[in-house]
Amino acid sequence: MTDPSDQSATRDSGRIVISVDAMGGDLGPKAVIAGIKQSAEKNPNIGFIVHGPAKQLKPLIRKRGLADRCEIRDVEDVVTMDAKPSHVMRHGKGTSMWSTIDAVKNGEAEAAVSCGNTGALMAVSMIRLRKIPGVDRPAIACLWPSKNKGGFNIMLDVGADIRADEKDLVQYALMGGSYARNGLGIARPRIGLLNVGTEEHKGRSEIKAAHDLITEAAPEAEYEFVGFVEGGDIPSDRVDVIVTDGFTGNVALKTGEGTATLIREFLNNAFRASLFSKVAALIALSSLKRLSKRIDPRRVNGGVFLGLNGTVVKSHGSADATGVSSAIKLAFRLAESRFTERLAARVASAPRALQDADGSDNKNEQTG
Amino acid sequence: MTDPSDQSATRDSGRIVISVDAMGGDLGPKAVIAGIKQSAEKNPNIGFIVHGPAKQLKPLIRKRGLADRCEIRDVEDVVTMDAKPSHVMRHGKGTSMWSTIDAVKNGEAEAAVSCGNTGALMAVSMIRLRKIPGVDRPAIACLWPSKNKGGFNIMLDVGADIRADEKDLVQYALMGGSYARNGLGIARPRIGLLNVGTEEHKGRSEIKAAHDLITEAAPEAEYEFVGFVEGGDIPSDRVDVIVTDGFTGNVALKTGEGTATLIREFLNNAFRASLFSKVAALIALSSLKRLSKRIDPRRVNGGVFLGLNGTVVKSHGSADATGVSSAIKLAFRLAESRFTERLAARVASAPRALQDADGSDNKNEQTG
Repeated sequence: MTDPSDQSATRDSGRIVISVDAMGGDLGPKAVIAGIKQSAEKNPNIGFIVHGPAKQLKPLIRKRGLADRCEIRDVEDVVTMDAKPSHVMRHGKGTSMWSTIDAVKNGEAEAAVSCGNTGALMAVSMIRLRKIPGVDRPAIACLWPSKNKGGFNIMLDVGADIRADEKDLVQYALMGGSYARNGLGIARPRIGLLNVGTEEHKGRSEIKAAHDLITEAAPEAEYEFVGFVEGGDIPSDRVDVIVTDGFTGNVALKTGEGTATLIREFLNNAFRASLFSKVAALIALSSLKRLSKRIDPRRVNGGVFLGLNGTVVKSHGSADATGVSSAIKLAFRLAESRFTERLAARVASAPRALQDADGSDNKNEQTG
Repeated sequence: MTDPSDQSATRDSGRIVISVDAMGGDLGPKAVIAGIKQSAEKNPNIGFIVHGPAKQLKPLIRKRGLADRCEIRDVEDVVTMDAKPSHVMRHGKGTSMWSTIDAVKNGEAEAAVSCGNTGALMAVSMIRLRKIPGVDRPAIACLWPSKNKGGFNIMLDVGADIRADEKDLVQYALMGGSYARNGLGIARPRIGLLNVGTEEHKGRSEIKAAHDLITEAAPEAEYEFVGFVEGGDIPSDRVDVIVTDGFTGNVALKTGEGTATLIREFLNNAFRASLFSKVAALIALSSLKRLSKRIDPRRVNGGVFLGLNGTVVKSHGSADATGVSSAIKLAFRLAESRFTERLAARVASAPRALQDADGSDNKNEQTG
């Protein structure tokens, strides 16, 4: 299926290769190829393997002048947004999504990017890449606009699974900490455990147990545990990483998105209310656009799957070229920092840390 | 402890009496009395029993010309914002909060309003008013700014308890429906069950079981069940009432508040960014103020405790006069519609509805 004319995308070129699913996003392959174009222009060190029907992709890639940066994998089928994950697991082999993940599995690419159906992408990633030894439940980590200097916090799990016990939660802390170091460049991330109050006696039993485990693991895992945080702290500068189960995290994520969308609508209406406010909106256009960008959930791109043998970045289904490009940038950054290996080392060292409070002789391991 | 000069507040006057805790809010009794003043002016049919130290309250009430509308209950102690609910349950008898609830218990007032500590207020309400027969877990219902015509949706539970099984969730549906009818005037409220997806196969087992029970109860309970909803639907016009457990509801509420607060800060910064945007902000001032009011969580006042023998409205801790007045208005409206009795009748009829799918001979009961 490989197009022999496009070999310069591969590792032989010295480039870091990102495997990109061109299909499955709301805006179709055109937006994805436009996103690749943006990334290719900004960063000469990325090569791409692009998955989808060659007859659609070839003209788009040629038009953008990307033939020397993109290798095409000709696959006909596409996973639709409403496809059931269990169906895709059984019958998804001929899809662009499957092919995208397989390029990482086979070592041809160092990270994968897809705008497709989240549940299906997680299912395919699980069965093709498999879980890292020691991880029971992989997680999806999202970026959340915040008051932190970098502009974002990390929250996980936001929907890989609907439950998490205390051992899963401490793994999320380790994985989220590793992601903050390698993805956001925060040397010593502050980790918070989401709860309904900040007092230590509050909350469900598994959350109280996780509080103790995450405290125990902190010295060796190189994060600072700030203890319980509440919903209002998610966009704050009190923490860098918010740990929660996938049910709560998914509800919180969508509630935050819904609130932001509602306020943007209110804001638009407010500026259409009178002639005065219309004039004001014109004057303040650039400020308002900046604000709108910052709170538009479609711009907060790049949910990352953690706990698998390979880096998979899930771009928003409605991502435009800029959205796709920012997801590619994140995938590149994680690949460059050898994130998968570091995260695996981090998780592998955790049980020791929890069994052996001293554990000082493990300190010289690579920082994950 | 009753001041004999102020008897006109009581039921003998033909007024509906609201029991108001003057203490425990962040802004002190002054803001509470100012709120009472606003309500008293707008509505001649409300009488007040006001609880707190008489030496503080008397001058405030006299100054506002409210002596003929307010009866003072002289109580010295105050429940602080950081008081533990369990401590208040054992030692709270001499507090304004306890006295406020007791006036409802004793039949002197028809509903209670307090800005105090939520956990303590729920604890005191539980032991003094007791649960309605058939209710296992009382719930706190909040109003959520939404795209609905009335401007609000109802969500429950937002923190009375940290867990809920399928039977609790169906009770929340019944209680939330009753609240929407009596508090918001929605004849046939649309009820949604919060989940991580809208497909019927998704979610935790108790949520799937609740889906079936709420569906079964719908015909007799006079609500429309729209099925699963997601976090993004909370501020939408798809539903009137969102049912969830208290852990998830509390996280969602605080996440929504945190997001709104963050955006308001971004907005303020955007309008301070340049001279142009400052001018624009001046021009658009009234539109922006209207928006700011709409998304300010302090304005969304009046969490209501559901499932107790008496109506208790929890006003926001930082409520100003307008906030207190809107909580009083809600308490009056619920008292006027005999909400407590209607909700009790609704819950009492529910087991029959669930056991007997026909149940048509119950239809002539009072609409709760």
